[in-house]
Parts: sequence; C-alpha cells; structure tokens
Amino acid sequence: MIAIAGRHHVSAPVITFLSDYGLGDDFVGVVHGVIAGICPAARVIDITHGVGRHDIREGAVILRGALPYMPVGVHLAIVDPDVGADRRAVALRLADGRMLVGPDNGVLALAADAGGGVLEAVEISNSHFRLEPVSATFQGRDIFAPVAARLADGEPLEDAGQPCDPEALVALELPMARLRDGVLTAHAIYIDKFGNVQLNVGHDELVHSGLKLGHSVSIETGPDERHEAQFARTFADAERGGLILYEDAHRMLAVAVSHGSAAEHLGLAVDAELRIRPG
Amino acid sequence: MIAIAGRHHVSAPVITFLSDYGLGDDFVGVVHGVIAGICPAARVIDITHGVGRHDIREGAVILRGALPYMPVGVHLAIVDPDVGADRRAVALRLADGRMLVGPDNGVLALAADAGGGVLEAVEISNSHFRLEPVSATFQGRDIFAPVAARLADGEPLEDAGQPCDPEALVALELPMARLRDGVLTAHAIYIDKFGNVQLNVGHDELVHSGLKLGHSVSIETGPDERHEAQFARTFADAERGGLILYEDAHRMLAVAVSHGSAAEHLGLAVDAELRIRPG
Amino acid sequence: MIAIAGRHHVSAPVITFLSDYGLGDDFVGVVHGVIAGICPAARVIDITHGVGRHDIREGAVILRGALPYMPVGVHLAIVDPDVGADRRAVALRLADGRMLVGPDNGVLALAADAGGGVLEAVEISNSHFRLEPVSATFQGRDIFAPVAARLADGEPLEDAGQPCDPEALVALELPMARLRDGVLTAHAIYIDKFGNVQLNVGHDELVHSGLKLGHSVSIETGPDERHEAQFARTFADAERGGLILYEDAHRMLAVAVSHGSAAEHLGLAVDAELRIRPG
Repeated sequence: MIAIAGRHHVSAPVITFLSDYGLGDDFVGVVHGVIAGICPAARVIDITHGVGRHDIREGAVILRGALPYMPVGVHLAIVDPDVGADRRAVALRLADGRMLVGPDNGVLALAADAGGGVLEAVEISNSHFRLEPVSATFQGRDIFAPVAARLADGEPLEDAGQPCDPEALVALELPMARLRDGVLTAHAIYIDKFGNVQLNVGHDELVHSGLKLGHSVSIETGPDERHEAQFARTFADAERGGLILYEDAHRMLAVAVSHGSAAEHLGLAVDAELRIRPG
Repeated sequence: MIAIAGRHHVSAPVITFLSDYGLGDDFVGVVHGVIAGICPAARVIDITHGVGRHDIREGAVILRGALPYMPVGVHLAIVDPDVGADRRAVALRLADGRMLVGPDNGVLALAADAGGGVLEAVEISNSHFRLEPVSATFQGRDIFAPVAARLADGEPLEDAGQPCDPEALVALELPMARLRDGVLTAHAIYIDKFGNVQLNVGHDELVHSGLKLGHSVSIETGPDERHEAQFARTFADAERGGLILYEDAHRMLAVAVSHGSAAEHLGLAVDAELRIRPG
Repeated sequence: MIAIAGRHHVSAPVITFLSDYGLGDDFVGVVHGVIAGICPAARVIDITHGVGRHDIREGAVILRGALPYMPVGVHLAIVDPDVGADRRAVALRLADGRMLVGPDNGVLALAADAGGGVLEAVEISNSHFRLEPVSATFQGRDIFAPVAARLADGEPLEDAGQPCDPEALVALELPMARLRDGVLTAHAIYIDKFGNVQLNVGHDELVHSGLKLGHSVSIETGPDERHEAQFARTFADAERGGLILYEDAHRMLAVAVSHGSAAEHLGLAVDAELRIRPG
C-alpha cells in the first residue's frame, strides 16, 4: 500500500537498483520504464550506476554497504559481463526478508551473507515473468527488471522460476587482513570516486590493532614505499594534503588524503596490500 | 489516479524525460521541480540526459528505442540547439496514445513514426501553460516542462497552444542500408557509451542478409580497412577483445568488441559506412 | 498527503537534494534510502549532485537559482569540506516557508537570503533524529538525511535540535559588480558544464548598463585581453563560435559562445573580473 498521509507509514513497495550501466545511455531509464509498467506503485531507488564496467567485486562491495540503509524490498543488482552466456540469473530470499535479483556471478554474494544468508533461491533465466523476446545482451530489461517488478508487486518468489540450491550459488572471495607482530596487513577493498580507499579491516579488528586515535602510523605500500599518516577521526583533522587513516562511514578502516585522493597519492588499486603499524 | 495498493494498477500519470542537459548542472533538477509543482501526482522517468550536446539525431534514435518500454504517457525530449530562435515548440498526440513534447527539430520524428504517426499537433511556443517570463535559453523549464505537466495532469492537448499541420513537422533522414551481390552496406546509427555500434539493419533485413550465426564475417570500414568478426549471439561468445556482429537488444544488427569498444577498435563514428559479407 | 488523482493536488511532501557527492558512488543512493525509510511518502527531487567537490560557493549559487522552481518543502544541500569537524549542522525555517538543511558553512546562505531570511535556526549536530552511530565522514547519511526526512514527515523544527541565533549563521560574500564611466565591471559567478558564464549583474542593473540588444560590446578579461561580442537574446542569434553577452534564464547577465564554451574561449574561472562596455 502506498503512503496516504505524511505520518502514516503505509509504504509503497521499494525496489533498489545498482548497476554498471552508467547514465550516459538509456539502459537505466529503460529498466525504470519496464518496472513502472509492471508495478506502478513501486518506488525505485538508484543506489548507483557508476560501478566500474564488469566489476562484479565492486558492485558486490557497494551493495553490501548500501543495503542496511535501504528499506526492505527487492534489490536489483546488475553487473553482468557474461550476459547471455550460461551464467545463471537468480532471485533470492534472504533471512532478513530482503529479496535480491541479479546474475549469479558473485555480485549478490556479499549482500546475501550480510542479510543472514539465502533461504530460498530461484533460477529465473526462463521465468515466465520475463519479456519476450529475451535479448542476449540486455537482460536487465528483459529478465531482471520484470522479475523484480513482479516480486515487488507481490508475486511469490517460487512463481518467478525454478528452485535452485542456495549452496550452489557463486561465492565471492575477498582477501583477508591479518595482524601479526604489531603489523596489520590489509588490502584495498573499494576506492570511491574521491580516491578514499576502504580496507578490509572492520571496527572490531581495528580495536585490537593497537592503533591509537591522534597518533601517527606508518603505511607501507611496497618494498621502498613508506608513508607517514595520522590515525584521525575525519578529513578535517589533517592539514590539506595530509594523509589520514580513519574509520569510515561503514566502520571500516580507510585511507584518505584531506582535500585530495589517497588512491592517487599512494598509487593504490583494488586489492593492493598495505602494511600498517604504529608510526 | 495513483496506485493505492500493490496489485491494483491504477497508476499515476507518467512523464518520461530525455535531454542533452547532462547531470552536472541543475537543468534536469529544475525541470523535475517545475513538473512536481504543477502535477505532483506525475511520476517522472529519466530516459537519459547523456545525449550528446545538440545531437538531435542521437536523441531521436534513443527516444525511438526507449519508448516501447515506457508506460504510455507524456514524453518530453529536449535537444534544442536553436532554443529561443524561430524553430517551433510542439506537443503531439500519436496514434498509439502517447503524447510527445519538445522542439520541432527532428528529435521527436523517429518516435512519432514508430508510434503510428502524429494525429494531432499543437505549436506551444506561446502556450498559456508556459511560465512567465519565458527565457530565451531555458525553454525546457519555461515551456516544455509546464506543458508536459499540464498534459499529464489531464488538460486537453488543444488547450496547450495553436493547432498546426502534422505534415509540416520537421522530419529526420537516416541513411538506408542496402544488400547487393551478397554485400550488406550498413551505417552506424548509434554508439553507446561502451562503444557498441548499432547499425541500420533490422531483424527482418538481417534474416535476408545471408549471414549465419556462428560463422565468420568480413567487415570493411574503408578502402584498406578489413576486419574479421564472428556473427554471434552475445559478447561472451567471443574471446576477450574479439570482434562480434550480433543482433542487439533493439533487434538491430550491431558491432561490439567483447569486453572492449568496437567504436574505438574500428575507428567508427555515427554515419560511418560498413560493408559486411560472409567471411 | 499524497496526490490521489490527477487533478486533485493534495501533494506528497517534497525534499530537494543538492550535493557535491557525484553519482559515481552510492552516497546519493544511500541518502535516498535513508529518507525513504523514515518518510516513505516524501518525493525526493535531485537538484544536482554535480557541484564541484567542496565548492561551497557553487553549491550556494545553484541552490539559490533552483529553489524558486521547486515546490515549497525541505531543501537538503550538502557541500561539506569540514564534515566531522566543528562546523555546525543546521536546519532553518525561512520567511517563505521553505526549510533548509545542511552544514552551516555558507552553502545555505544565498538561498536563505532569497527566501526572505531565516526565521528560526536549529543546530542539529546532536539531533535525536540522527542515525547512531554518527560517522565522522558521512553526515549526509547520519544527520542531514534523517533530519530532512523527519521534517518532511511533519516533525516540528524545534524538535530537530538546539535553537541557535540566525544572526550567527555563516554568511557568503560575493563580489559586487559596479558601473562607472560607462564601464560595467562584473565577475564570473557560475560556469555551467557547457561553459556558459553567469555574471553578477541582474536584470535591473542590466537595464541601467547602457548595453543595447543587438549591438556589439567589448569585453576585457585582462590587460591585453579584449574580445568583441554581441549583446543578444539567445545562442542562435550568433554565428557558430560567435561570442555573445545575454540575459540568462535566471535573468542574470551571462557570456556564451554559440555551440561552444565561453569559459574556455575567454579563459575564465569563477571570480574572474570582466570589464564590459558598448563596443
């Protein structure tokens, strides 16, 4: 049910949408059109369409980070380098009540784990919800959008396709950080468009790292590449151009340059290894 | 009427919006604001605002391809190099029930044809729906958006301005493909942001072209420029970097490079001529 | 109350949203998600997220220009180079009924003046509407979005935080144009993505400038930098590549190159001084 009055929260169904389609063409607009035609009541929230082309891992990391801030609904995620080939297309029901729709190539994997795991999985490549003829190159339009819209509209998941084994879904491996002899070895997991670099060190691990707020740290990015940084709360705690290590908005350890780009400054790409110790 | 409950499809009026405004400034946002002020019930779907600056032809091609996936409504398309000069501004009712609003410079022409032709045309430059004072440089805000919003709100088309002759609307010429002696001469019609190149060869013409799925083809892009490609179903059918010819999501023949850019690889711009034959 | 039928304008609450977040990451999407979770009835209009990174002044100028075209509502503006530091976060009620939410660093200042001034100001850094834990780097998500959503949902402004003195809000100084001995000295205030340059000369001042429509003018951008331009109504009044001075859509004097970029052609950046006289 849609909301009728300001303070009566009877909500429209929500579909969130993340992709690597970019906004320069009409791919995103066409998916919105298909959804509006099938489930006009649905509210569509664009998480982002700026995921790097074919970058499944980046899509998976962004989706995992964004979902806790989205209303529970149907969550469409399309980063699909093998569209039209034999990777599966799936719709999943998670333990936390969310439904995920997308290719089974790992892009849904981190969000599925974060949502308590997959209770029910359906292979939707031949869904009778899909638009005919199904193109081999734009299944966002022909399969994923119509399935998401039908689910948002209240159709039961089991009607969306053939049941499949949640255990057989494609997983996604991330590198693991480790703490040894006072040295924290971490990896770049996500680099935002400002050049802030998120590392694979969460709040709890950070507490045990021995790093102290306001103190300086040493960051080694290669054999002869050592940088001094400050462990700080926010960008403004450093001089313009200063390097900081901080707990980011996802409560993950991250590296930034105040008013600049840490990725550029340190020459970091995703999966780069950093060795961090009190400086 | 807006949708009240998930499965009862009494829908809000839909306005779709395509332009070359880009998203870097507030032009698109201001048009949304004007619409929301006049017809708060309208749902606005952005088809794209990434049309090349002043590229009427690109706007027309995208609009034609996207409309079949949009709910029937009011379809605003603004690519307007001669804004404020004496080109006409129009609102059109098509045979398929859609209404188009935009400058009469060809940007609406292909969608109008695809929608069965124009039943009724109105010149809206002096529409009493427009916002005063009308600026000479942002008629999206002052003329097109308010007219679209009023039409979405149920105002009759004839109240939007002065009737004009549908036959006198500006047309748009596209180059024509031809098949002779087993050689298909085609032209680049649209190049998406990934570098996939759509040609002016539709599904029916393709059937008669003699090209066979899975076979190799030769693509000539100039006197000494010959490339071997594979006639394939989807990107994943070729090696990474491999050139493919395929039927795209609009059922048009297209050229792509798997995980790459065909436009770059072949040095193609819009209107480039390609000579294609079984390889 | 949301709109129920096309022509009955009982509207949903409106939140407009401007930022320098860009669309490449999920920052904008997450703010939308937070708002949808708190006030599902709110309609969110994105003014733009293309404000230059940390460019408070550009954000302020765009917000001032866009608000008159937005329905009265809650207007969220986030350009926040000192996020997490000791700048205040505020929510303001203006004389014209609008509410502004954002950092107190000047980004709201021009819109507040244009809206008749601030009647009531509340410091929201410790608002009990905020999401816990509040991050030091993404207060758009944790403070500004939830406060805006609660206000849109009908919560009274005084419940959003601690009252503060409207007189103590951070102001924004813009350079002033002057007319002396027939020479109009003006400054670049805003440069749009097409390179059109808005100057700090409004409609009334323009009337007194002695410039005559259709006549030529001389524009001096430096000691030896003099350009001839035409004072015209619109881009199409000049040859392709021709320099024009015109009254823009905000009724401000502006400089453009027909089918080109005036900013590039004249080498102008924001705050550049131009000396204009009848040519």
